[in-house]
Amino acid sequence: MTITGEMLLGATALRGTDKPIRAVEAATGEPMEPAFGGGTAADVERACALAWAAFDTYRETAPEARAAFLEACAQAILDTGDELITRAMAESGLPRGRLEGERGRTVGQLRLFASELRDGGWTGARIDPALPDRKPLPRPDLRLRQIALGPVAVFGASNFPLAFSVGGGDTASALAAGCPVVVKAHSAHPGTSELVGRAIQSAVRSCGLPEGVFSMLFGSGQVVGQGLVADPRIKAVGFTGSRAGGTALMKTAAGRPEPIPVYAEMSSINPVFLLPKAMASRAAAMGRGFVGSLTLGAGQFCTNPGLVMALDGPDLDNFLASATEALGGAPAQTMLTPGILKAYQTGVAHLAGNNRVRKVASGQLATAGTQGEAALFETTAAHFMEDPALAEEVFGAASLVIRCPDVETMLRLAEGLEGQLTATIQMDEGDLEAARLLLPVLERRVGRILVNGYPTGVEVSHAMVHGGPYPSTSDGRSTSVGSLAIARFLRPVCYQDMPEALLPAALRDGNPMGLWRRIDGVLGKD
Amino acid sequence: MTITGEMLLGATALRGTDKPIRAVEAATGEPMEPAFGGGTAADVERACALAWAAFDTYRETAPEARAAFLEACAQAILDTGDELITRAMAESGLPRGRLEGERGRTVGQLRLFASELRDGGWTGARIDPALPDRKPLPRPDLRLRQIALGPVAVFGASNFPLAFSVGGGDTASALAAGCPVVVKAHSAHPGTSELVGRAIQSAVRSCGLPEGVFSMLFGSGQVVGQGLVADPRIKAVGFTGSRAGGTALMKTAAGRPEPIPVYAEMSSINPVFLLPKAMASRAAAMGRGFVGSLTLGAGQFCTNPGLVMALDGPDLDNFLASATEALGGAPAQTMLTPGILKAYQTGVAHLAGNNRVRKVASGQLATAGTQGEAALFETTAAHFMEDPALAEEVFGAASLVIRCPDVETMLRLAEGLEGQLTATIQMDEGDLEAARLLLPVLERRVGRILVNGYPTGVEVSHAMVHGGPYPSTSDGRSTSVGSLAIARFLRPVCYQDMPEALLPAALRDGNPMGLWRRIDGVLGKD
Repeated sequence: MTITGEMLLGATALRGTDKPIRAVEAATGEPMEPAFGGGTAADVERACALAWAAFDTYRETAPEARAAFLEACAQAILDTGDELITRAMAESGLPRGRLEGERGRTVGQLRLFASELRDGGWTGARIDPALPDRKPLPRPDLRLRQIALGPVAVFGASNFPLAFSVGGGDTASALAAGCPVVVKAHSAHPGTSELVGRAIQSAVRSCGLPEGVFSMLFGSGQVVGQGLVADPRIKAVGFTGSRAGGTALMKTAAGRPEPIPVYAEMSSINPVFLLPKAMASRAAAMGRGFVGSLTLGAGQFCTNPGLVMALDGPDLDNFLASATEALGGAPAQTMLTPGILKAYQTGVAHLAGNNRVRKVASGQLATAGTQGEAALFETTAAHFMEDPALAEEVFGAASLVIRCPDVETMLRLAEGLEGQLTATIQMDEGDLEAARLLLPVLERRVGRILVNGYPTGVEVSHAMVHGGPYPSTSDGRSTSVGSLAIARFLRPVCYQDMPEALLPAALRDGNPMGLWRRIDGVLGKD
Repeated sequence: MTITGEMLLGATALRGTDKPIRAVEAATGEPMEPAFGGGTAADVERACALAWAAFDTYRETAPEARAAFLEACAQAILDTGDELITRAMAESGLPRGRLEGERGRTVGQLRLFASELRDGGWTGARIDPALPDRKPLPRPDLRLRQIALGPVAVFGASNFPLAFSVGGGDTASALAAGCPVVVKAHSAHPGTSELVGRAIQSAVRSCGLPEGVFSMLFGSGQVVGQGLVADPRIKAVGFTGSRAGGTALMKTAAGRPEPIPVYAEMSSINPVFLLPKAMASRAAAMGRGFVGSLTLGAGQFCTNPGLVMALDGPDLDNFLASATEALGGAPAQTMLTPGILKAYQTGVAHLAGNNRVRKVASGQLATAGTQGEAALFETTAAHFMEDPALAEEVFGAASLVIRCPDVETMLRLAEGLEGQLTATIQMDEGDLEAARLLLPVLERRVGRILVNGYPTGVEVSHAMVHGGPYPSTSDGRSTSVGSLAIARFLRPVCYQDMPEALLPAALRDGNPMGLWRRIDGVLGKD
């Protein structure tokens, strides 16, 4: 397939006439061919009109038809072959193994939602049968199901050019829910975006769906990004990126004549709590494990462990010595974009320049101007509490270790943290009591609590939560990874005394779709 | 029980020191005893501190304990006896029968959430067991459950002094979810509020729960209302009232350092579509049925039918003649507050003064200055489309009939409506095709679609949706009536590789709570 630099508007491809974007080869900083013309307000208008026109038909396609479509998307993405991997490698600087794995994840994600569609539990079907003889008043026949919210604007993320981008989790879950999707492609990997976008476009065609089910635009955050979020036909937003970017979209969405939900996955420092008994028994091993998680993918994960809390003392010294050694073997890595590298270097310089923070260790030196060097810092609990800037995310392989005088201080620090995607507890049997104190504090603050693991590595499954209170996301009632992500794009509708001929299949007598339904509150397959 | 005029702060009662509020006897306009001292910022602070202190304990009480608490609240409300009814009658002007019925609804609502707690489906438990041998990477053990959001600020509604007020649906669903509640009592029925508040306070005590589970404040919208929504310990808001009031709270909530969800049920004109065959066969009966719904409770329902669409012609003339006759027999009714009466009269005067609108009929004349007279207006589809003000809610027994030239115009008008709580279709067998065209348009715009009924009368059950797209509510993904309302106050948390000793009961091996759980995606009672 040739990468043309065109946007995808329904079934057509079109060169944008606004300021063009060029990919930059991450490893060299050199601009790449071709140019991708930026979208205009008219392109936003056209994509939204197509999505709106497709909505009523698409949302009422049989779940099996949508499942087959998601599987066709998966297959079409696989069919892009090595071209997708090599383009994504060039644009992101991520290594082949990672991107091949990420393609597997992306395809698996689409297939998970296909199976979720066949399961049907997302329909949330409930029936309260009529009680015509009830006194003092009869009860009407009431039937509830979840329906699609409407067209969804999806913003690709820079750090997962496949799994959180054009055909990533937001797109897969919105399409599963019955929502057409308009993607604003991330400017850091436009070629990768076009390849995946064309794969989805071909699946729309081969499945005979209305063309407006999927469109993809290149262009600026202002014209295309804000334009999409402001369009009255867009009914929800999926975003993964920076706190500044996410809050800007939240503001636009809240200020519309009809405000809409924004699912923005933004910033998280993913605290790791090293409890005393675990430290006493395996501080050195934890130091190595931690560095493995910290440096994975150049630290460019939303779940990168950016904060470590432990009791001051010799065990922590052992942990740091081991981490220092491990970090010494960690090569500098190409970062995703010059902007991300620069922000990382600025964050690291701020920490290094803070006279209450000590640099503990560094990764290997960069061998090219596009690489980031890992860095580990430490400070005391008292200093951390005094300086809120120390709790800000530094996106990349940097982390800050807090020396705490006692477990109570760790609890107090935990209580002071903003909302997070994850929190990790390293513990042994003897730490149960401390963990019990920590658990409720973490439950209030995070979406996922891990024991004796590291937060990088987000399973795509039914029980995953990749979400959490603000500012880790804009809406802590949701997850952007795993099958529960479909719930973000649904809303309940009740049908009262609706004739059988008008009822949606999910709610008809005799349960033709074989769904789990609550009949008068009792769950079963009637 | 004596009504003292005191606020309830946890286990204590306290006279507010801010500007006092007095109830006004709805029928006479006379101020009533006692004065209710308004809450201050310090009272807001104290109520939120108590709620926060109670949160971790209360959210982890066994569901059975919360169910027993909700039942104790119901019993305590019943135990207020006739005093509650007579006070509510005086403060609201609503008749005895309605308020006795509303108390039954309130108590039934609390009991419904008790049964919902015992059902346990709201837990949303999911378990993806570990796959230690999976290649290339093992899968950790992942377990998900829904937990309470945090303390909730609830705003009582004027039009349901029992069922949507201190002990109403928002309070019941938030308490069921495990959220402490701080109520801002509505200033129109402070005595009713105190009686119900004391009933809940006594249930908190008798159930041995932390006192901060429930507090209730009187006072101004600015100090107490906005103060509660801005407090960092409040994590969600439940509100029923005007569009202006709801949007002001939305703005405050979105502008917090940590934005929080607002569930505001605001404005709806509840369109009724009279389809041609039904009109041909039973226009006169429909006219009578419609007026019954229009005038119920002086029209002071969120689901009052404020807009009627029908084809121009003799059948519509029949409908209007029958409605006119029925309206002629409809007495003027005491309205809830002087402010609501005045807003109603202003709305009616605007319609009457619009030279493209014709007054069709009136209810009987008022016999007191506190009563509202029902009114029915008509206009043409063309005029309705030209003047957006005609689609604004007039809260009370007024409705506007639109003469449409054809069904296509009805569809176009439907497509132009804002979000609504309900839409009603009156149809016969021969109208199926028209209804089929209307249905998708309505699904996108409303929370509940009724056939051959009227929208007033909102069943409290499992399949009810009392919600809808903005501006009918601030969050169309939810319902404020029925058991699904509990979902508003929950968020998912995932536990990864958590030792059995730390896992919440809902997620432990062996399913000790006997819940429906999804194991590897498959629903069952393992």
